[in-house]
Amino acid sequence: MVNGLAELDGAFAALSHPVRRQIVERLAHGAATVGEAAAGTGVSKPAITKHLRMLEKADVISRVVEGRTHRLSLNAVPLEDASGWIDRQRALWERKFDVVEAYLEERKGR
Amino acid sequence: MVNGLAELDGAFAALSHPVRRQIVERLAHGAATVGEAAAGTGVSKPAITKHLRMLEKADVISRVVEGRTHRLSLNAVPLEDASGWIDRQRALWERKFDVVEAYLEERKGR
Repeated sequence: MVNGLAELDGAFAALSHPVRRQIVERLAHGAATVGEAAAGTGVSKPAITKHLRMLEKADVISRVVEGRTHRLSLNAVPLEDASGWIDRQRALWERKFDVVEAYLEERKGR
Repeated sequence: MVNGLAELDGAFAALSHPVRRQIVERLAHGAATVGEAAAGTGVSKPAITKHLRMLEKADVISRVVEGRTHRLSLNAVPLEDASGWIDRQRALWERKFDVVEAYLEERKGR
């Protein structure tokens, strides 16, 4: 179940750390090795391992092992689900204001 | 600075718990008292207090105190920033596939 509570919990938690977002930003430009994905983050290898594990557990990234090389790539669906959830709340909230505005316009017109 | 690292950290962390998302879903329909926002979550008052504090700290919700009533409402900007960040990564990632597809089409055409 892709839209489940636990899936959204994991996706949002995965995106709540700047190093993990930096890795996602790198992978948005294309698949990368662990070394490439970690480049420029300035954190230790064990820390990168933990961050990658959290991103993988949330299904935000996938890892394919080819011999000695671990290739990481982004998964679009959990990201879509997360931004979709936010956008639905925003749409409801904005419609709220449209209704108030329409009411005020109508009153003004009378 | 609205697009800062700490702001996105807070917004994503705030959305990573089902009870906090339930509160946001309630507030997306309009401002509410603490009691109204907490209705149906099935968690204790101290737990609600903690969840609200986290949502407020992340600036996802605002609280206005009117006498004894605390009115909660949603803030659109941090939600926009969070979904905007996700959508930028998705757009980059999807463009990646468009480029590959265009290349394959071009090869096929030769």
